[in-house]
Amino acid sequence: MKDLQDLQVGYDIPAEPGMAAADIQTPALVLDLDALERNIRKLGDHARAHGIRHRAHGKMHRSVDVAKLQMELGGAVGVCCQKVAEAETFVRGGVTDVLITNQVVDPVKIDRMMRLPSLGGTVSVCVDDAGNVADLSAAAVRHGVTVDCLVELDCGMRRCGVSTADEALALARAIDDAPGLRFAGIQAYHGTLQHVPTHAERAEIFAALHRLLSGVLDTLKAAGLPAETVTGAGTGSFEFETASGLYTELQCGSYAFMDGDYGRVLDKDGRRLDDGTWENALFVLSQILSTAQPGRAVCDAGLKSTTFECGVPHVFGRTDVTYIQPSDEHGTLEDPANVLKSGEKLKLVPSHCDPTCNLHDWYVGVRNGVVEVLWPVSARGRSY
Amino acid sequence: MKDLQDLQVGYDIPAEPGMAAADIQTPALVLDLDALERNIRKLGDHARAHGIRHRAHGKMHRSVDVAKLQMELGGAVGVCCQKVAEAETFVRGGVTDVLITNQVVDPVKIDRMMRLPSLGGTVSVCVDDAGNVADLSAAAVRHGVTVDCLVELDCGMRRCGVSTADEALALARAIDDAPGLRFAGIQAYHGTLQHVPTHAERAEIFAALHRLLSGVLDTLKAAGLPAETVTGAGTGSFEFETASGLYTELQCGSYAFMDGDYGRVLDKDGRRLDDGTWENALFVLSQILSTAQPGRAVCDAGLKSTTFECGVPHVFGRTDVTYIQPSDEHGTLEDPANVLKSGEKLKLVPSHCDPTCNLHDWYVGVRNGVVEVLWPVSARGRSY
Repeated sequence: MKDLQDLQVGYDIPAEPGMAAADIQTPALVLDLDALERNIRKLGDHARAHGIRHRAHGKMHRSVDVAKLQMELGGAVGVCCQKVAEAETFVRGGVTDVLITNQVVDPVKIDRMMRLPSLGGTVSVCVDDAGNVADLSAAAVRHGVTVDCLVELDCGMRRCGVSTADEALALARAIDDAPGLRFAGIQAYHGTLQHVPTHAERAEIFAALHRLLSGVLDTLKAAGLPAETVTGAGTGSFEFETASGLYTELQCGSYAFMDGDYGRVLDKDGRRLDDGTWENALFVLSQILSTAQPGRAVCDAGLKSTTFECGVPHVFGRTDVTYIQPSDEHGTLEDPANVLKSGEKLKLVPSHCDPTCNLHDWYVGVRNGVVEVLWPVSARGRSY
Repeated sequence: MKDLQDLQVGYDIPAEPGMAAADIQTPALVLDLDALERNIRKLGDHARAHGIRHRAHGKMHRSVDVAKLQMELGGAVGVCCQKVAEAETFVRGGVTDVLITNQVVDPVKIDRMMRLPSLGGTVSVCVDDAGNVADLSAAAVRHGVTVDCLVELDCGMRRCGVSTADEALALARAIDDAPGLRFAGIQAYHGTLQHVPTHAERAEIFAALHRLLSGVLDTLKAAGLPAETVTGAGTGSFEFETASGLYTELQCGSYAFMDGDYGRVLDKDGRRLDDGTWENALFVLSQILSTAQPGRAVCDAGLKSTTFECGVPHVFGRTDVTYIQPSDEHGTLEDPANVLKSGEKLKLVPSHCDPTCNLHDWYVGVRNGVVEVLWPVSARGRSY
């Protein structure tokens, strides 16, 4: 064994390429590379078959390497992200076509965003406020760049975005009139739609969105400002957006890794999305630390290793043991037959992939039981 | 303004010393240094007045700088932590007296732990299993070191730890017999006790712990293996441990920063702990991104900036607006009078400090409206 002080496995990194997967230091984010590649190709096939662009949501993985795989294997045109610091990470890493699916209002952030073209980036951004359009325009002029702006439409979440066709048109006109900005289209992403459990309920919610969006697009067209890009959709809804004929671009992200929350969503035949549609490619590898309490075992992955706002993780491929309770650094498992042994490792499926990935510094890519790659979570913590 | 590409504010760091606090890039962890120092001195005064050691729990902040402040201003003897990689971070940073309040079972982790004395560290560890004692002993002998081991007692959480005096004695004997190990005492930390809302309920739960622990300590003493160290206690319970006369060491951590979950705990007069006992010293600074929806506003701190397993954060010093709903990168606020403006910054009090701190790379220390220090979250992500 190499000297641990140099190797730093278990301090700075959880593993290194060539190691047996069994030796990965826990807790660690582990990617099943075969499953990941199959997921990526599958969505790429869908997009190609339907003639719709896929712009992978990089907020999910925050990884330059995964984004490049989505472009190479899945034909993604680039990435979406939510933050300027994420966009900068992608551009600096060579993923140059970036849509910020969010508002950017801070002067320092606007300035950093306007510098991205000088780093080789093509960056577009969403707006829902005329004052913001003026600020973006002034900065674009100051930096001598032209930036594509999309009007964000509130699809029913009551979060960001304008609510009516008239508001959308007024904002599109403001963008069109603003020096340094170009009106590029509409963002219509419905976040809460994604996890509605049944296909029939999702179809009903999407029908309302379809009516709203059709009206907006018709209004823009009639006013001579047609939306060149209409972007949105996630892993739970993208078949509706594709079939609608209204969208030009899908933003799906979680499909690549999957998680427990998307796994529970049902397809039109009532089958879970993690049962044949998308494979679990992302795991939190964890180790049993204690079996002192009868009927229980304690592992080393708690709130700092996998997030719980969507429930507890499940133990992949096991029905005999159940993760029941997180604490900061521990996970308590029910183990009625006392089968778990101290030191044993378990693959946990996180309930919510996006914030779980953001807890870790590294993805450990595994194939055939061997660590193949170590990828940084490139934009981890870069929420500015 | 310096060139942003060099400065990196808004990319690698949220601020730099000398900046106005109003210019901190959001979302960011902000420390009110005056409040922090008062909290630290106050617990130090308690420990000194009662002749009990304070070993600050470094798992809360994962910061070498905060640990040093707790030692300098509060007289802490060193730190506790939960992970070997945290311990290594503290030792490498010059905080050399470290108790790992957890089991260490992995061979690589045991090896790394046994190297800490060669880095200048004095490290002790908890055990609840005889097989683990044998593994630790073999490694200590191999490395030519002697390591202090504490027997962990389950105080009613049913997580790690042995449950009876006989089990504790058997394990103490195993440690005492094991080459390279020294039996140092008992860890008796009751995690779920900490957030029990009323003082009377906490007193009742502690009374049961007192009976259990007294029996364990008597048994050990009678067997000629008295517990030199008895360590435990948290911010919600430490007055009981101090008053019990059984403990030699307090492990309180959250008192230094405070959070929403501890704020709701009531003292013996029925007053919240954040009302005069401990000051909120930790905030997530966040910025309003969108006010497009009437009666609402959206800020830039969601699940990747403050954790939600203990509920939503509250807006410090404001009763007119309420944080109601997180998403990954957004926080939705109710703002019935539409007072919030785009670009405005809010101080959020996280509901749970430990995992929230672990989301960020930097603490921004502020005094009198100016950024005074930028401290790394030294062991962030080091959960190995």
